[in-house]
Amino acid sequence: MFFHMQDLQFDAKPEGPDAAFANRLQEVLGGKWGEMTVAMQYLYQGWNARLPGKYKDLLLATGTEELGHVEMLCTMIARLLEGAPMSVQETAQKNNPMLAAVYGASNPQHQIVNGAGAYPQDSQGVPWSGAFVTSSGNLLADFQLNATAEMQGRLQVARLYEMTDDPGIKKLLRFLLARDHLHQQQWVAAAQEIKDDGLDGMPVPEAFPLEEEETGFAYQVMNFSDGTSVGEGQWAGGPAPDGSGRDLELVERPEAHGGRQTLPPGDPRLYGTPPGTTPGSATEAPTNAR
Amino acid sequence: MFFHMQDLQFDAKPEGPDAAFANRLQEVLGGKWGEMTVAMQYLYQGWNARLPGKYKDLLLATGTEELGHVEMLCTMIARLLEGAPMSVQETAQKNNPMLAAVYGASNPQHQIVNGAGAYPQDSQGVPWSGAFVTSSGNLLADFQLNATAEMQGRLQVARLYEMTDDPGIKKLLRFLLARDHLHQQQWVAAAQEIKDDGLDGMPVPEAFPLEEEETGFAYQVMNFSDGTSVGEGQWAGGPAPDGSGRDLELVERPEAHGGRQTLPPGDPRLYGTPPGTTPGSATEAPTNAR
Amino acid sequence: MFFHMQDLQFDAKPEGPDAAFANRLQEVLGGKWGEMTVAMQYLYQGWNARLPGKYKDLLLATGTEELGHVEMLCTMIARLLEGAPMSVQETAQKNNPMLAAVYGASNPQHQIVNGAGAYPQDSQGVPWSGAFVTSSGNLLADFQLNATAEMQGRLQVARLYEMTDDPGIKKLLRFLLARDHLHQQQWVAAAQEIKDDGLDGMPVPEAFPLEEEETGFAYQVMNFSDGTSVGEGQWAGGPAPDGSGRDLELVERPEAHGGRQTLPPGDPRLYGTPPGTTPGSATEAPTNAR
Amino acid sequence: MFFHMQDLQFDAKPEGPDAAFANRLQEVLGGKWGEMTVAMQYLYQGWNARLPGKYKDLLLATGTEELGHVEMLCTMIARLLEGAPMSVQETAQKNNPMLAAVYGASNPQHQIVNGAGAYPQDSQGVPWSGAFVTSSGNLLADFQLNATAEMQGRLQVARLYEMTDDPGIKKLLRFLLARDHLHQQQWVAAAQEIKDDGLDGMPVPEAFPLEEEETGFAYQVMNFSDGTSVGEGQWAGGPAPDGSGRDLELVERPEAHGGRQTLPPGDPRLYGTPPGTTPGSATEAPTNAR
Amino acid sequence: MFFHMQDLQFDAKPEGPDAAFANRLQEVLGGKWGEMTVAMQYLYQGWNARLPGKYKDLLLATGTEELGHVEMLCTMIARLLEGAPMSVQETAQKNNPMLAAVYGASNPQHQIVNGAGAYPQDSQGVPWSGAFVTSSGNLLADFQLNATAEMQGRLQVARLYEMTDDPGIKKLLRFLLARDHLHQQQWVAAAQEIKDDGLDGMPVPEAFPLEEEETGFAYQVMNFSDGTSVGEGQWAGGPAPDGSGRDLELVERPEAHGGRQTLPPGDPRLYGTPPGTTPGSATEAPTNAR
Amino acid sequence: MFFHMQDLQFDAKPEGPDAAFANRLQEVLGGKWGEMTVAMQYLYQGWNARLPGKYKDLLLATGTEELGHVEMLCTMIARLLEGAPMSVQETAQKNNPMLAAVYGASNPQHQIVNGAGAYPQDSQGVPWSGAFVTSSGNLLADFQLNATAEMQGRLQVARLYEMTDDPGIKKLLRFLLARDHLHQQQWVAAAQEIKDDGLDGMPVPEAFPLEEEETGFAYQVMNFSDGTSVGEGQWAGGPAPDGSGRDLELVERPEAHGGRQTLPPGDPRLYGTPPGTTPGSATEAPTNAR
Repeated sequence: MFFHMQDLQFDAKPEGPDAAFANRLQEVLGGKWGEMTVAMQYLYQGWNARLPGKYKDLLLATGTEELGHVEMLCTMIARLLEGAPMSVQETAQKNNPMLAAVYGASNPQHQIVNGAGAYPQDSQGVPWSGAFVTSSGNLLADFQLNATAEMQGRLQVARLYEMTDDPGIKKLLRFLLARDHLHQQQWVAAAQEIKDDGLDGMPVPEAFPLEEEETGFAYQVMNFSDGTSVGEGQWAGGPAPDGSGRDLELVERPEAHGGRQTLPPGDPRLYGTPPGTTPGSATEAPTNAR
Repeated sequence: MFFHMQDLQFDAKPEGPDAAFANRLQEVLGGKWGEMTVAMQYLYQGWNARLPGKYKDLLLATGTEELGHVEMLCTMIARLLEGAPMSVQETAQKNNPMLAAVYGASNPQHQIVNGAGAYPQDSQGVPWSGAFVTSSGNLLADFQLNATAEMQGRLQVARLYEMTDDPGIKKLLRFLLARDHLHQQQWVAAAQEIKDDGLDGMPVPEAFPLEEEETGFAYQVMNFSDGTSVGEGQWAGGPAPDGSGRDLELVERPEAHGGRQTLPPGDPRLYGTPPGTTPGSATEAPTNAR
Repeated sequence: MFFHMQDLQFDAKPEGPDAAFANRLQEVLGGKWGEMTVAMQYLYQGWNARLPGKYKDLLLATGTEELGHVEMLCTMIARLLEGAPMSVQETAQKNNPMLAAVYGASNPQHQIVNGAGAYPQDSQGVPWSGAFVTSSGNLLADFQLNATAEMQGRLQVARLYEMTDDPGIKKLLRFLLARDHLHQQQWVAAAQEIKDDGLDGMPVPEAFPLEEEETGFAYQVMNFSDGTSVGEGQWAGGPAPDGSGRDLELVERPEAHGGRQTLPPGDPRLYGTPPGTTPGSATEAPTNAR
Repeated sequence: MFFHMQDLQFDAKPEGPDAAFANRLQEVLGGKWGEMTVAMQYLYQGWNARLPGKYKDLLLATGTEELGHVEMLCTMIARLLEGAPMSVQETAQKNNPMLAAVYGASNPQHQIVNGAGAYPQDSQGVPWSGAFVTSSGNLLADFQLNATAEMQGRLQVARLYEMTDDPGIKKLLRFLLARDHLHQQQWVAAAQEIKDDGLDGMPVPEAFPLEEEETGFAYQVMNFSDGTSVGEGQWAGGPAPDGSGRDLELVERPEAHGGRQTLPPGDPRLYGTPPGTTPGSATEAPTNAR
Repeated sequence: MFFHMQDLQFDAKPEGPDAAFANRLQEVLGGKWGEMTVAMQYLYQGWNARLPGKYKDLLLATGTEELGHVEMLCTMIARLLEGAPMSVQETAQKNNPMLAAVYGASNPQHQIVNGAGAYPQDSQGVPWSGAFVTSSGNLLADFQLNATAEMQGRLQVARLYEMTDDPGIKKLLRFLLARDHLHQQQWVAAAQEIKDDGLDGMPVPEAFPLEEEETGFAYQVMNFSDGTSVGEGQWAGGPAPDGSGRDLELVERPEAHGGRQTLPPGDPRLYGTPPGTTPGSATEAPTNAR
Repeated sequence: MFFHMQDLQFDAKPEGPDAAFANRLQEVLGGKWGEMTVAMQYLYQGWNARLPGKYKDLLLATGTEELGHVEMLCTMIARLLEGAPMSVQETAQKNNPMLAAVYGASNPQHQIVNGAGAYPQDSQGVPWSGAFVTSSGNLLADFQLNATAEMQGRLQVARLYEMTDDPGIKKLLRFLLARDHLHQQQWVAAAQEIKDDGLDGMPVPEAFPLEEEETGFAYQVMNFSDGTSVGEGQWAGGPAPDGSGRDLELVERPEAHGGRQTLPPGDPRLYGTPPGTTPGSATEAPTNAR
């Protein structure tokens, strides 16, 4: 169950309108790696966690914080849209050389659809998708992903920071950069805690019995590109990170371990191109129907 | 530039048809974490890499291998669809109790649309999306993501392994489990190499100047959920993983650092609900238009 | 800013597993008219509301409640997935006639992707979309929409109620039916309050000057279908609901008020089929380029 | 069955090209609340209506009219694209300050993909989706939704009207404003007729037995946001709009009626993080498998 | 402008309910190659056609017919859903072995969302998309595409015909098969007419000056797969179908005509991995900024 | 199995940066008819081909070439993004009139998300979709579609060629125009070879027995639009292209062959609007439940 407080977690006001930047901010609000994604991803992982206690609560607590970041970004976007030009004609009249660039780079849906407000879509207007959420039920896999989500997020905010001179916007982004910094660390620490608690390890999922793998293929880095530079990294000869004591090795020219790709003939009621009617077309025998 | 060899990298044939399992395999072919995603993600990361040499080539080599995995899964799916029942009536006639379950769990598009073939969609028929690909231009962020992609992939294949008794399918999955095992290790090693080469570090991107952050917020884990279990992990008191020598700390009850969320009044030509017309509705002053 | 409480707003446990019903519940969780939609729609409307006070707060308060409903549904779905059959073979072994139906009607992603958990997608696996959210900036239009969202939602929950005998599921649905009942009333009352406060009216947006319309067409119901039954309702002769004092009227056989649809010839650099080369192909004159 | 007449229902020609406005018009053609949506929504509701007569025919007649509006908007968009600049270079040569704004705000697919024509996508290029159509089988719910669709539509057209000076475009928009005005009234009247005919009422669906609800929760408006302004509207104390004779009431601080959210331990074959292995992790008992 | 007639173009009633087949029919209603697609594609092509007369009218006439096919399929789907089982329990009680298969293969949204009605989505529940519509402005390219759309459509209907014994359904499909047969011929004839009228030819668009191509590559079929069978068809040695009098030729082992793929170093403000910091990483020189 | 060569199939460097054109190139990379589509479509058709030999190999060889075109376009896009302006302010400072147009027309995700790199999305930022791939199992239908894909592709590249003066970009496009020219011819030749080999013919699929059609409707072109121009083409009187020896004929005013569209009453547990309660509402009798 959730409660809302009308104060913002952090706030900063822009010096003036900038509809172009308002649109760019949509990326970190409703894009694949934006605040909507981390909020929903952490909450779903928390709700689905079957292990109660510190991990589940950390997910729910952090997802709840991220909802407050969604709120902050919506607020900034709405402020940046205040006083945005309504038409080409208005843009031309003000005779400000930057306005043509701003008008062209603004998001028409911000005005037509949302009445100068934010929405859960990215900087190209593609709606936020539930497919952006991953909640696998395996906390180590998910914590590692959460750490990378914060990396992608901080990277995008850092780029936005270079795209404006407005001190109010920059102040807000400085806060988000710090929280992405913290959350990167938090998920790295949580992944380590999972290992320290003996709950999982590498390769994820550690519980799958390794003897069930075709283990001969588990330590061979294969070079499917030409040249030799693939052999120059620690992945091509260093100790295997899975703690098995084995070394990774390089396969310079991978071989095919299967034969030619062929298929059985197919059911004629599907009206596919019938096999067997041209010379040399030896398909597989049909598998026995059950 | 690419070349194709008609032999498969690895191959195994199913003992018999299973249209239900054919559909389940679509998840690791065309789902968010399937082979289409890793193939395209590694190739785009490689093509966009501005740093030539070992990292770029490793990406291109691995993406090229994954295309061969797409090929192997398509082949297996087409074989499992050979002889699948065409109708409810046919299902009933065979009087095999398993067939009703298989028919219900099969994918109607496999027959109607693809003529007993695979396609780039997931196990619920949702098309594979270019949005699944991340290629940020920052190799450390992307290598970490690639490692987690292999974790999610191996997790899904391990689950599929438990969902069938067919030795041919299991043999193919054993190969994929081993390659996901290898690729997890490979990307972990590559991320370490980036750090060892001094190209990036934590927090990603390390090059962003930390003094530009609101650094007071960069080490505080905040508990936005009730209870105390959030304070029980190393994230709430251990050393910061960013190498700063600082410790993470817990904020038990986070405070709001911003005031009440309000917005300026809005342009009347957008026909929003007009502010200022009910008692006490004190909005922000409008920002000055440029 | 938001806070999370670990207790659920309401709770009920199912008597046993039912993976088929777990999938059906996804519709009211992540479908177009599900809890994700109303939670996000009310929050975005609240964040974007430029008029502070009772309306903005009602939106934020209600959106926050709906997040707790998302949580309740995720919990129920995860419980229903506990012990779900993992394979066709396992389904067959248990020799329970219902299991084949359940297996066929279950969602393969619930196990393969989510590890027996819920996700923000609908009952056919289509991801929840940010496009489901409408936040127009006009509160009357949005409150009316919110009322209909609760109607569609209550309708779907009522149908689900008829689809199960499990008393635990039914208890949870009874709660949701009551809240949808309340929220229907709440948004109807809020729309009335907007009118009573003189903020907007019909036709929405009332502030657009009616004399700018082609008003001749604003009261004519047109019958573009054959037969006469369109003329039998109050829409074809009753008083206009916009309070203008005029009557609606029926146009039995609508006329075309424009001429034949033609277009100017097009830029040859676009390589369209060139106009003017067959007899009688008289296109429009080109409009003057600016 | 449908017939097409080559004359347009209404027509107006623009004074000159305007590729930026052509793109903005895509919103009311192929956006969520555009003409494609209302055309298809009314037709599907009509086709699916199991009650023959006036309601079914009104839906089919109106949907058929809306198809003609799709045609009118396509025509206007194609005319506005006539003579649009083909390149940055061409834009620069004409030395017209407005052209840079127009070029930046134009839709590249209008030329590259459609050869200066319209398509069923919105003003940000997102394709029109069948998910925009709601046809629930319950006419009261759907008529109320149709009324709100016309509200959102008229709101968007009113905003577009403020974004241009071109008298031809304005003339077309005046017609659409009038028809949206009419259709708002029409669906409000039709919803009233449903009630007058005794077919349904509030809460929708009225036929669901109220005693099956957890009725204690059906009249309580709950304040999940802080502050007291939620209590200031008629929703927090007025008579219930469902005609029950009861009053709505405000719950100032909602309580949790369920306990802590916990889940059963999960099937180990799904390789989730195993519960029960850290101190204090008391999960639910597993539900009995069927 | 359009008119609707309440009679169906063709009609047939099913012998009994079949919710599984109802779902399969969604594919040819709302799938990529279904009736929604051809209806909308032909209408948009017609509306956008800048050449008036026979071609434009043929498109509009045929698109209008296809709307009637959408209507017919909706009707059939709604009839097949009449009396469909509402729950697993009900399915089990009827003790009919086919019902478990039908229940599992049915579409839960047909009941929960649509109240036993059709909707514009495919047989896996993926919404119909405006992206399915192609209207390029080049009639030859589009007529060829229309012919293939009818081929894919007829193929799918033929497969559906094999999937049922119900004489009513089969009667309806026989009509659709005949119309797809006609429309295949119609578009082939229309493409021929375009050529006969001298409006376009091969390669499409013929108006693009061939001397602007790198024509050396315009007649070489390249074998990027191993083996020699690519050389066995008329494409590897026959006369070029473009009427140039040249022959196609086979390149057995294609060569790279470009050098190694490298990129310039990138703007440091984007925080990508910095180039030039490892040995041998010679990137391109930066291009001169304008 | 695939191999990658680090050299490009063809290469050309732009004279300078152009972020607007970089975005336009996304259309032929990740749009519906772009290189991603043809690469994946040919590969899936090849993998699913049940007939081994020349056709299957031609598909795989050509799909493999197209992957190299994806690589070439990514390279060009990344080069065009080098040195693109990062902000409105920077754009204004350079005082170059073209830059405002370029800034407005550029893709914000190119910088924020991809760090000056390409991605699998179209020129409006809509992600590439697996739904763009058709692989029906019927080679004649698919080869005809492949030919039209090359037509649409060449048309788009020809338009792009007119949109730039940069000789490096034009050189690359000249190569693509030539390959699209070749591939148009190749698929036309392959379709002819299928017919010559006796594998299929018109109407596709030829194997479906024509006597199962409602053949009376297979030769009638119907005019559902007003006017007479539909009767002016060879489709309205010429010989049927299916080789049947029959003629196509025109139906000037099509008749309805079915009666009024009605539906059975529906299950009351779905809470639809109940039929039969208003005068004259004669629905169909319910079909018998199985």
